[in-house]
Amino acid sequence: MNYNDYFEAELTRLKDEGNYRVFADLERHRGNFPHATNRGDETKEVTIWCSNDYLGMGQHPAVISAMHDALDTVGAGAGGTRNISGTTHEHVLLEAELADLHGKEQALLFTSGYVSNWAALGTLASKIPNCIVLSDALNHASMIEGIRHSKAERQIWRHNDLEHLEELLAAQPLDRPKLIAFESVYSMDGDVAPIAEICDLADKYGAMTYLDEVHAVGLYGPRGGGIAEREGLMDRITVIEGTLGKAYGVVGGYIAASAALCDFVRSFASGFIFTTALPPAVAAGARASIQHLKSSSAERQEQQANVAAVRERLDAAGIPHIDNPSHIIPVMVGDPVKCKYLSDILLAEHGIYIQPINYPTVPKGTERLRITPSPVHSPEDIDRLVSALEKLWMQCQLARIPMAAQ
Amino acid sequence: MNYNDYFEAELTRLKDEGNYRVFADLERHRGNFPHATNRGDETKEVTIWCSNDYLGMGQHPAVISAMHDALDTVGAGAGGTRNISGTTHEHVLLEAELADLHGKEQALLFTSGYVSNWAALGTLASKIPNCIVLSDALNHASMIEGIRHSKAERQIWRHNDLEHLEELLAAQPLDRPKLIAFESVYSMDGDVAPIAEICDLADKYGAMTYLDEVHAVGLYGPRGGGIAEREGLMDRITVIEGTLGKAYGVVGGYIAASAALCDFVRSFASGFIFTTALPPAVAAGARASIQHLKSSSAERQEQQANVAAVRERLDAAGIPHIDNPSHIIPVMVGDPVKCKYLSDILLAEHGIYIQPINYPTVPKGTERLRITPSPVHSPEDIDRLVSALEKLWMQCQLARIPMAAQ
Repeated sequence: MNYNDYFEAELTRLKDEGNYRVFADLERHRGNFPHATNRGDETKEVTIWCSNDYLGMGQHPAVISAMHDALDTVGAGAGGTRNISGTTHEHVLLEAELADLHGKEQALLFTSGYVSNWAALGTLASKIPNCIVLSDALNHASMIEGIRHSKAERQIWRHNDLEHLEELLAAQPLDRPKLIAFESVYSMDGDVAPIAEICDLADKYGAMTYLDEVHAVGLYGPRGGGIAEREGLMDRITVIEGTLGKAYGVVGGYIAASAALCDFVRSFASGFIFTTALPPAVAAGARASIQHLKSSSAERQEQQANVAAVRERLDAAGIPHIDNPSHIIPVMVGDPVKCKYLSDILLAEHGIYIQPINYPTVPKGTERLRITPSPVHSPEDIDRLVSALEKLWMQCQLARIPMAAQ
Repeated sequence: MNYNDYFEAELTRLKDEGNYRVFADLERHRGNFPHATNRGDETKEVTIWCSNDYLGMGQHPAVISAMHDALDTVGAGAGGTRNISGTTHEHVLLEAELADLHGKEQALLFTSGYVSNWAALGTLASKIPNCIVLSDALNHASMIEGIRHSKAERQIWRHNDLEHLEELLAAQPLDRPKLIAFESVYSMDGDVAPIAEICDLADKYGAMTYLDEVHAVGLYGPRGGGIAEREGLMDRITVIEGTLGKAYGVVGGYIAASAALCDFVRSFASGFIFTTALPPAVAAGARASIQHLKSSSAERQEQQANVAAVRERLDAAGIPHIDNPSHIIPVMVGDPVKCKYLSDILLAEHGIYIQPINYPTVPKGTERLRITPSPVHSPEDIDRLVSALEKLWMQCQLARIPMAAQ
């Protein structure tokens, strides 16, 4: 077999479908985000409208300064797995900070949010004898892979559908171990789970709850603890999973839970045990970011104001977008080639960078431009975004709200 | 079911077996590594003898300076997945550097070495139709998980056993896609694979080769390209996988291969697509480290001299250790409780930190102290290490070489 021919044929197929991804080569400038230099075919200044650095904390002086300090005092890498010389004091401090953020006994740090979901769900569901996992239909790839990895029985409940979840729970013996896995804010549609009602069902049927808050931590709740904090529900969730790479502006993932659960995952999760620990400077930067957002709500308020402003302007222009209660604004296109074309024109003619979101990130036929306004976007940035979209919608004769499916 | 009771019972079982892990809480001091402060029950100065920061690059001025510069110019986090605004120019430069290091068309960066193995092997073996994976019996957990994830047929060949590998290859149809997965330096025993002979078999039976060089990159070869570089074999390997978290002193993992293969994994690997990119400062630090070790062999030579010195002193003292051609010195103990006890005494009475290596990192019954001399250990450090081990071996009446199994 000629392996390279096979790879090339598969890539050609992706290109023919319009699903081949071209990465923008960006150079951010500290202090100037969301403005950046696109180093692609021709170097060009752009405004980023699709970042998950939701609050601009990736350039916050407190974060940068904590990272500089840690580099100078302790150096670059951790030098080992957490067990073999790789646990530094910065890791210990960050885990304490995360436990406090979520009001849990302990937290456990992973190299990424992806790995935290994969390793924690994979370990819990495989180790707990006869465990069944009830997984929301729109759960993130990392959760799906973790559940699959566990080889535990899995049932999918229709997205945010409490009746379906209860039906599945009620069909199981009351004493069978159960794990309900779901997210608070869903990344691509921006809708929010009915957390309290899911906890009620968990109590009624003796299930654990595993809540992915990666698109919510730092962004919701008086201290940035997420949707569960805002709704006073953190103590009802068995495991809260979060990331340090989105609102907190650095990188890494974690779970927060009881001391026994964290220690259990720490002791048995392959994806935790057999990997080099995050650099202490990354841990220090994340901790500074969490601490800042625990006491400052200014970034959250400004973000929410900008999100509202963009929605209002899109509505006025008749640009179709999913109405949801979060900070994520999905402008629906519904075709991969058209979606990429819009993104290309926005970049080339307007200096606006919004990556097209195509399959496999979203189902085929629901391709979209996913817009994430931040507190560091200016009123002028918003003007230019909406004007450009309006012009494009007119040129392309795309559906406006009255005709749109969404 | 009371879930917490279950977790606690499992942890108690681990403790009873002597396999419960306690992490040392270390504070490294830039410029002073391998000396560090242990922030455990009582704060104490220690010498680290078990780090995978094999060359001390985690404190190298070129690495620290590159990270400082990147923090100041571009900020902390990447702000998204590689596809959605997370590809920064530092990622592009690092991938070019890695491709050059291994003489390959392209390289692809992952958040960790673990993820690179899991995602690359998982994607290749699952996507290539009817692929069979031939996996060395001592492959790392991340490779095993990736192969398992692929659901492809897998056959295990006895560790470094060419006859067994050929037997398995010959039993398959010549035109069936095959992937031989192995490591160059095996982490826990420090032995080295017969790479040329494996490549011969791959050629004969039409197989791809996947070589994990995580314990070799930076350390072997005139430019630090690994064992395959040293032996002039890089062009015969289909995929070279490496890490930025050991000899290079930062964090992250990668593969280097043909452009089509890298693009294929880039386009289909869940663990690559759905995760936040590494911070640009991490990429910058790793690139500086690779560049330094491409042109400087001083660190490698000093490391090898220190490894030879430690081995010679251990031999003179009759302390049993596995004889191997690498920089890893496994001192065999063979019992988890004894291994932890030795480690505790070394730490408490001698200020020497060597984490006990117990199950599941090594098979039960092969528990060991894994010693990794670096160029930054001084002759006095070596004196204190060997004297302490000698004293302990006498006190504990542990087997000396003539009586040792190893």
